[in-house]
Amino acid sequence: MRAWADWVKKKNQSLGFVPTMGALHAGHASLIYRAKKENDKVVVSIFVNPAQFGPHEDFSRYPRPFEEDRKLCASLGVDALYHPSSEDIYPQGYRTYVNVEGLSDLWCGRFRPGHFRGVATVVLKLLQTTFADRAYLGEKDYQQLMIIRRMARDLNLPQRIIGCPTLREKDGLALSSRNQYLSPIERAQAAILYRSLNTAAKKIKSGETVSRALSSARRNILSVPQSKIDYIALVDGESLEELKTPRPGARIISAVWIGKTRLIDNIKLV
Amino acid sequence: MRAWADWVKKKNQSLGFVPTMGALHAGHASLIYRAKKENDKVVVSIFVNPAQFGPHEDFSRYPRPFEEDRKLCASLGVDALYHPSSEDIYPQGYRTYVNVEGLSDLWCGRFRPGHFRGVATVVLKLLQTTFADRAYLGEKDYQQLMIIRRMARDLNLPQRIIGCPTLREKDGLALSSRNQYLSPIERAQAAILYRSLNTAAKKIKSGETVSRALSSARRNILSVPQSKIDYIALVDGESLEELKTPRPGARIISAVWIGKTRLIDNIKLV
Repeated sequence: MRAWADWVKKKNQSLGFVPTMGALHAGHASLIYRAKKENDKVVVSIFVNPAQFGPHEDFSRYPRPFEEDRKLCASLGVDALYHPSSEDIYPQGYRTYVNVEGLSDLWCGRFRPGHFRGVATVVLKLLQTTFADRAYLGEKDYQQLMIIRRMARDLNLPQRIIGCPTLREKDGLALSSRNQYLSPIERAQAAILYRSLNTAAKKIKSGETVSRALSSARRNILSVPQSKIDYIALVDGESLEELKTPRPGARIISAVWIGKTRLIDNIKLV
Repeated sequence: MRAWADWVKKKNQSLGFVPTMGALHAGHASLIYRAKKENDKVVVSIFVNPAQFGPHEDFSRYPRPFEEDRKLCASLGVDALYHPSSEDIYPQGYRTYVNVEGLSDLWCGRFRPGHFRGVATVVLKLLQTTFADRAYLGEKDYQQLMIIRRMARDLNLPQRIIGCPTLREKDGLALSSRNQYLSPIERAQAAILYRSLNTAAKKIKSGETVSRALSSARRNILSVPQSKIDYIALVDGESLEELKTPRPGARIISAVWIGKTRLIDNIKLV
């Protein structure tokens, strides 16, 4: 990977980087498409990062359709695919972890301890390995995007971190590799998440209090059998601190279980 | 700093980097000298890093003779001096810290909680800012050297981390900016540290048990009034795990108080 990246640098070409865990969908494709437009060369990484999964999470069953991913990347004109093993990334004796303190303990961090430490560490390492000029991340994982951005700024990383809009199914469900865990019935029910966020955002915009708008979103979501809410909250778009009243750049962020599948989504107040 | 480093890179010149907290002495000069020999350009940083001092440590009284340091660097042919403020390195909202887990909790880490997290973070950040090819660190801070090396390897940093031998006064005392805290009497007594390490190393080499050799070193050191031992131990030269019997690459490492001054030193078993 480093040799190829050096070769790109030597030619004075710009390099765009799309870090993924594979199981690529149209959301990833949109990141790749943007990276292609803005850089001479594009590298995509596919690495299901053990450090960002908790002991009882879905690491082992996370989908790994490598051959399909490879074909999709080829069809999109990706120049290099970086597909390291766990031992490549975390060789024996590995001990170094990065943590964006505070930001990593909020929201998803409360329900997935250590998750963002794993995310920040692997992204830092991938950035050091690919030497890309720009990295492209989806806004669906909004807290992740803010953490990576903060890390890049804090550590003076040379890369620009570029957030790209969430792609959605027709019924509004955010594209996610985990959507394939949903049964057909759950898949239909899952649309409630975006619908509820959207309705809450509109209510807040038209003057309803944040707490009333979110309470009603909660009730909607919980009307789905087997659903559970980890959190739904209005937050500052950068610090992710909870807000009782709207402000410019504020977002509603959420994590919700439909049966055994955990879904996240977020929406900007406009 | 970044602009100058970019300019060096554009010329395809190699860059050596010597990170310091200033109060430069001949030990630093030897690092600079070696960096000059092995690189086209050399940058020295002077930054008393608040993140590596505990709340009751000597951050505020740490010596800061900037003008003398600047002159020494100029006389040694240093090409650039990087002298950031605390706000440059840790601007408001700064949250990102690197930790070499395990290694950072041993030895000095037990007595200075958070110290190595501060060291690893600032060195990573300085390396990202200077984009140097090689970084030069003294072996006197042996645990620090091992932690930075582990970090560089773990994160795929492009820099080579080069450890350089400790420089000593005629009586064996390792050169350190903190030696100037010592009163004349303490300064004379401080030589006991290296002498004791040296004797212990010789005894172990000639077959005495590690525990006996170290006990007698402890007794020697404690014969100095107002002295205190944080630790003295034989350790593996890379993992820093404690050893009961010698092995190739093993080191005796130690931290000792002479009055109100904390001194560290180490010696390789040969």
